[in-house]
Amino acid sequence: MSDLERLIQLLAKLPGLGPRSARRAALYLVKRRDSLLAPLAKVLTDAADSIRPCSVCGNLDTRDPCGVCTDPKRDDSVICVVEEVADMWALERTAAFTGRYHVLGGTLSALDGVGPEDLAIPGLLARVRGGPVKEVILATNATVDGQTTAHYIADLLADCGVQVSGLAHGVPMGGELDYLDEGTLSAALKARRPV
Amino acid sequence: MSDLERLIQLLAKLPGLGPRSARRAALYLVKRRDSLLAPLAKVLTDAADSIRPCSVCGNLDTRDPCGVCTDPKRDDSVICVVEEVADMWALERTAAFTGRYHVLGGTLSALDGVGPEDLAIPGLLARVRGGPVKEVILATNATVDGQTTAHYIADLLADCGVQVSGLAHGVPMGGELDYLDEGTLSAALKARRPV
Repeated sequence: MSDLERLIQLLAKLPGLGPRSARRAALYLVKRRDSLLAPLAKVLTDAADSIRPCSVCGNLDTRDPCGVCTDPKRDDSVICVVEEVADMWALERTAAFTGRYHVLGGTLSALDGVGPEDLAIPGLLARVRGGPVKEVILATNATVDGQTTAHYIADLLADCGVQVSGLAHGVPMGGELDYLDEGTLSAALKARRPV
Repeated sequence: MSDLERLIQLLAKLPGLGPRSARRAALYLVKRRDSLLAPLAKVLTDAADSIRPCSVCGNLDTRDPCGVCTDPKRDDSVICVVEEVADMWALERTAAFTGRYHVLGGTLSALDGVGPEDLAIPGLLARVRGGPVKEVILATNATVDGQTTAHYIADLLADCGVQVSGLAHGVPMGGELDYLDEGTLSAALKARRPV
């Protein structure tokens, strides 16, 4: 197999790229050897060497512990628990949270055979028991698996003396009621607040 | 800027990937260091070294002349002229053409300041005049620029003693008349054939 075919095959494995768009991306890369292909090759090589999961929270970074775990300005008393690194980054982009994070690495799933020992739950318990943590925010996805995992962790944390909270459910900003599902609408109605 | 940020920035330049999907792809890569990230880094480095445009037809390949130009089974008497390498690959996937190709590298465009000297037109004329070519198929896109370029080349080839042809226009296979534009429908009607 030629370099080009192999390049297309590997690009097609990326999320969001199928065989056709991988072909387009490969051609685009090869035509921009100096401005894109060579720099991308270099940064991928560097990333393969440098990026490691943080041993504290599970974030991906060139440092271990990661930048978020070592940031002295962040609040040690709140840990936000998320499923994946992408969720952590999404929360970081809001700039609305200044505590620490804990990445589970997935959700409990009986179907896929994912048990508590496959997730970073023991590490979370150790952090909560051993540190100055006062609140744990369970920010797993609002899916069945995500909520199951959140309930499981909430049960484990029940006797740790910390406050356990979850994200609010409701109408998304800019959302139109007509296009929302019944579950979201009824959650928003139940959690209604005085204006 | 960290390796991760730089990786996301470069991935976001690929066609079909925006900032959000580039972030997703970067995370996907970093989580699959051995199965995807390292191989992709290697093949990109290899490709940057090995893939060059073919000096005969403009195809991208690890060999020069490319595999298509050196294939002894292909018909030297027909040259198919396309705008980009991607178009050539699209035609190759049909396996319906066994002649040679010539990649122009774009279309004439007065607006973008692309003149005949910016495209591989001199090389095409040299190939037609110097070789056993009997037919030139102008397979540029069915856009204004593509058709303008095809007409320009057809004029240049008028006194070369070769047959000049173009792709048929009509209803795409599986196409529904109701969803087709008027231009395609009227072209299909004008070029109607006895059943």
